[in-house]
Amino acid sequence: MPVFEELSKSTSFGGRQLTLSHDSTSTGTRMKLSVYVPPAAERAPVPCVFWLSGLTCTEENFTVKAGAQRMASELGLIVVAPDTSPRGEGVANDDAYDLGQGAGFYVDATAAPWTPHFKMYSYVTEELPALIREAFPVRPGALGVMGHSMGGHGALTVAMRNPELFKSVSAFSPIVAPSQVPWGQKAFTAYLGEDQAAWKAHDACELVRERGFPTQILVDQGDADGFLEEQLQTWRLVDACKEAGQSAKIRMQPGYDHSYFFIATFIDDHLRHHARILG
Amino acid sequence: MPVFEELSKSTSFGGRQLTLSHDSTSTGTRMKLSVYVPPAAERAPVPCVFWLSGLTCTEENFTVKAGAQRMASELGLIVVAPDTSPRGEGVANDDAYDLGQGAGFYVDATAAPWTPHFKMYSYVTEELPALIREAFPVRPGALGVMGHSMGGHGALTVAMRNPELFKSVSAFSPIVAPSQVPWGQKAFTAYLGEDQAAWKAHDACELVRERGFPTQILVDQGDADGFLEEQLQTWRLVDACKEAGQSAKIRMQPGYDHSYFFIATFIDDHLRHHARILG
Repeated sequence: MPVFEELSKSTSFGGRQLTLSHDSTSTGTRMKLSVYVPPAAERAPVPCVFWLSGLTCTEENFTVKAGAQRMASELGLIVVAPDTSPRGEGVANDDAYDLGQGAGFYVDATAAPWTPHFKMYSYVTEELPALIREAFPVRPGALGVMGHSMGGHGALTVAMRNPELFKSVSAFSPIVAPSQVPWGQKAFTAYLGEDQAAWKAHDACELVRERGFPTQILVDQGDADGFLEEQLQTWRLVDACKEAGQSAKIRMQPGYDHSYFFIATFIDDHLRHHARILG
Repeated sequence: MPVFEELSKSTSFGGRQLTLSHDSTSTGTRMKLSVYVPPAAERAPVPCVFWLSGLTCTEENFTVKAGAQRMASELGLIVVAPDTSPRGEGVANDDAYDLGQGAGFYVDATAAPWTPHFKMYSYVTEELPALIREAFPVRPGALGVMGHSMGGHGALTVAMRNPELFKSVSAFSPIVAPSQVPWGQKAFTAYLGEDQAAWKAHDACELVRERGFPTQILVDQGDADGFLEEQLQTWRLVDACKEAGQSAKIRMQPGYDHSYFFIATFIDDHLRHHARILG
């Protein structure tokens, strides 16, 4: 792994749980990520799934809280969890938790002061896939993407815009229509400017209607999630998939909230979804 | 749950993951703990297992990192994880990570300045079992204890001293002979004083030779654990069990370190061990 510096390494379910860093050409910053390498990857190339995290998260939250390693080991999946934004002293930021560092929203910023470093779309769709393929035994064509909340938005949108790259997609509690809700409107205004035409290219509901996705979309959403009504509005994705004839399994899970306890409960289903499609 | 204040509640694997607090008569402080209540406990009393954490931990580490809820839900086990010491401004402390707040060592302190609040032995063997039985549907007589590192020491010693209370015991990376290693010698000198006779009552290897435990002891230890040689010295427990004829399964796990990635890998085995003995 010449490009990556290894910050930590632990054995987990017979595989390797790594924390890595590297200089990113997309963001112009040092980026951190975690990578789980299952035992099967020591023998032959295996499928790989990216995990995109939500607001305030780093590469660590999913890695220590989701309990994904057990099933990733069993199914033989590499799982890659990047940080959610560029970071550092020279990088633009905002005091709010939902803008700036920790809140990259998986777009390439085109508005000041975010333009120089906030290039998370290019990072997760171009630079990171190439680096991961170079450093780990990823089976060609077998890449999927999943995420949570802001990262659920990220997973759905980067997959629909790049179906030749990402063959499978799923999301927990995604922001399905960022153009229509406060989190998305605030972030897109800052990163993409006032012209809402540019927003549509990063809005999952718009993309479902415009492009769709070749394989079934899996979404889990807790009905006790405090963000459901104002920010997530899952029903918009249900409607869009119905209208567009998009194959989707969108499940409302009774009693579950927005936390990693929810994610941990259903992560096995998501990993199985990706493994089934990625073959 | 009149005695407990509920600080948070999340649905997890069909059960309830709670964070609670209460005024402790043992420590004279407000104590926090986490409790996982499996779906089966809504229908009938179920067995309960205490988890005792290691140095620097609170009630949160195990709860968010071990991934225990999945198997606890499947087996129908209540899992209780208390904090590792009293805390607060009026509570004695030390700048070191291995003494004072976050490092209670599951003993009742008899030396200044620790005596007034550092009563973790009484807390986990008397007060907490009584409160948990009052607030949750624990099947009578079906209580076990497990822990990690300092908490592995805690689990082994409180179980052997109270076999009528704890019917099953297991540990990850336990400090098996605190009287013989720096962590234990420092803590016991501070909490129990210079007289090493008092230390023996809280030393797992001494207790194995003196009392033993009625059911099999399960221990997992990673051979890549950086604390193995100096602080944990698992071979001392192997020898003590052999000499005393104590039934024990002590496994060296190749490649594993001291982290929660190790715990998460083998927590299912430990929960099954407790469920089998607790019936």
